[in-house]
Amino acid sequence: MGWERADATSARGLTPLLEERFSTRVFDPGYTLGVDDLRPLLEAARWAPSAGNSQPWAFLVGLRDDETHRAFVPLLSRGNAFWVPRASAVIITLHRSATDPGSDMLYSDYAAYDLGQSVAHLTVQALAAGLQVHQFAGFDHAATALAFGVPDNWTVTTAVAIGRPAPVESIEDAEPSLAQRERRLRDRNPLQGFVFAGTFGSPAEIAPAPGSR
Amino acid sequence: MGWERADATSARGLTPLLEERFSTRVFDPGYTLGVDDLRPLLEAARWAPSAGNSQPWAFLVGLRDDETHRAFVPLLSRGNAFWVPRASAVIITLHRSATDPGSDMLYSDYAAYDLGQSVAHLTVQALAAGLQVHQFAGFDHAATALAFGVPDNWTVTTAVAIGRPAPVESIEDAEPSLAQRERRLRDRNPLQGFVFAGTFGSPAEIAPAPGSR
Repeated sequence: MGWERADATSARGLTPLLEERFSTRVFDPGYTLGVDDLRPLLEAARWAPSAGNSQPWAFLVGLRDDETHRAFVPLLSRGNAFWVPRASAVIITLHRSATDPGSDMLYSDYAAYDLGQSVAHLTVQALAAGLQVHQFAGFDHAATALAFGVPDNWTVTTAVAIGRPAPVESIEDAEPSLAQRERRLRDRNPLQGFVFAGTFGSPAEIAPAPGSR
Repeated sequence: MGWERADATSARGLTPLLEERFSTRVFDPGYTLGVDDLRPLLEAARWAPSAGNSQPWAFLVGLRDDETHRAFVPLLSRGNAFWVPRASAVIITLHRSATDPGSDMLYSDYAAYDLGQSVAHLTVQALAAGLQVHQFAGFDHAATALAFGVPDNWTVTTAVAIGRPAPVESIEDAEPSLAQRERRLRDRNPLQGFVFAGTFGSPAEIAPAPGSR
């Protein structure tokens, strides 16, 4: 499974970086990123807020064809095996799901939440650099933990494909069904379905944004 | 407990909206937001990515002194009782921690992570409107679930104070210790502490950003 593709117009009206975000499955396989290109993205993740500043996140960084990347690619689900390796980088994300031995950190309840924020900040920084990010969880998590020596109190959570988006036509012949998915318009629940006031389930009085669907 | 305060220079080098983000405890108590001011923030949350587009988030929106706000303020922890009500709005965040009865949604493992992302997107949109956001978890979660009729398969997670930041001097006399905390420089673990390659714990070869500490 993965995070949805978007057409850039669906979220019109948001601040440009958010408006332009979409979880593409079509990356430019000829575009390479260096570790220094990733640094600002990781700095954005680093400066994300977290419960009590617990920073319960870790990242395993793979650049296309490097050691980490080569170890991870075979662990991808069938649905992700084609498009993920075409991205310039893949970052495996982890959260600290239990406190470190001897640590008095008590914020594990928020670790997954905080990791999600950290990855969102990484994504916004990537967008500012003209890149796109596609998060996914369709890979062998247990094998990943084993391959990279992940401690028991850390949980392999998602992976993040990062690269330069390419035209959907570039995968039309190789992966027609993927190209079809890429063209699918994204959708969201209306605000009335999840923005409440007074009681859970009672919609707050917020008019939907014009063109937000 | 709460999310850390930042001095705006600490994260220099990031894209402006992220660079300017900080979890202030000093809001302008005279500044009001209407429900339509919150709509773009909630649209940003709405358009965040989620596992399989499961959108496992919900929000209870309170504007200062409205019914939701008045019901929530008494549930704040002692440390949050002064500064949170001075914000223009408070949004209680929830994630779907178990699938709805009869639903075949299978993405609950990522619900907290996805809520965190959604709140990060809300935060970025708030920053674009000149607002600041301070997330916190220091309130009575059980009483909040009871007060707002939260179903068993939804988890009250954090609350988000939103408003216009005010000068720290504005709370100097009323809350000197809070003013002191507000002035504290924020800090983060160095990249080498959480950005790995090859093996968990082996730092990726990424130079720290100049001025990032």
